[in-house]
Amino acid sequence: MSSTAQVVITPDALLEHWQGHRRVTRRLIDAFPEDKLFTFSVGGMRPFSELAMEFLKMSVPTLNGIISKDWSSTGPAAPKTKAELLRLWDADTAEINRLWPTIPQGRFQERDVAFGQWEMPIYGLLWYIIDNEIHHRGQGFVYLRALGIEPPPFYDRS
Amino acid sequence: MSSTAQVVITPDALLEHWQGHRRVTRRLIDAFPEDKLFTFSVGGMRPFSELAMEFLKMSVPTLNGIISKDWSSTGPAAPKTKAELLRLWDADTAEINRLWPTIPQGRFQERDVAFGQWEMPIYGLLWYIIDNEIHHRGQGFVYLRALGIEPPPFYDRS
Repeated sequence: MSSTAQVVITPDALLEHWQGHRRVTRRLIDAFPEDKLFTFSVGGMRPFSELAMEFLKMSVPTLNGIISKDWSSTGPAAPKTKAELLRLWDADTAEINRLWPTIPQGRFQERDVAFGQWEMPIYGLLWYIIDNEIHHRGQGFVYLRALGIEPPPFYDRS
Repeated sequence: MSSTAQVVITPDALLEHWQGHRRVTRRLIDAFPEDKLFTFSVGGMRPFSELAMEFLKMSVPTLNGIISKDWSSTGPAAPKTKAELLRLWDADTAEINRLWPTIPQGRFQERDVAFGQWEMPIYGLLWYIIDNEIHHRGQGFVYLRALGIEPPPFYDRS
């Protein structure tokens, strides 16, 4: 293969990929019974509400860091109800869409030290965030099955 | 953001990303007790051996389709022991590395109908395979925790 071969993913396609996964995660949150969302887990792991909050603490704070190089933002405080979590989720969706087009051209290929700790190219950082959500959401699928609830399909990103 | 902005992931970086995830999955397979690998699950889901076989039925058959446009290959038959599954895994690792550099230049951006069913760009198809492995491997992390076994770290792709 020629060394000039490239896999080019446009910023728009990367955003749509992320938001597609986030739509699946939103459906998973919504599929949990209110109490189980905040309390149920398997094998001593965190309940799904805590995993969802981890996603929210990574998404916009990371975009803020990518755009401003200020890595000090931390994301929202933990909600107490499913409705409140879904509102935070939807606000995050809108904020991601608002921030995304302001990522400076060429920034995706730059290396940076995210939150003073993780050095990688910016596209790799975004990739990590998406992978982390897929990974922990897979956990949430098991929680739902263990509760006897059919999870939303993994492949449907609409 | 300028419409000329691009997220460029080189084929080498995409292969390394995939193989990094596959190394985590291999450690997860190896962390299961022999019998539990083939029998244990939570919530009526498939045991981890079957999920690992799904990955093997997707990886090389998809690469064969990408390279030759012949989508008829199906992957290996199910093994009966952990050692045999790990041997299949390692053979798959080597075969992926062998096939990868033969992907024709420009192929990543082409659209195709994989296995006569899924139409998407080739890079999107590879992305789906990786995401699917992360998703189901997340399930395997829960199985291990439910068995009281510490899973390998998600973030260590070495």
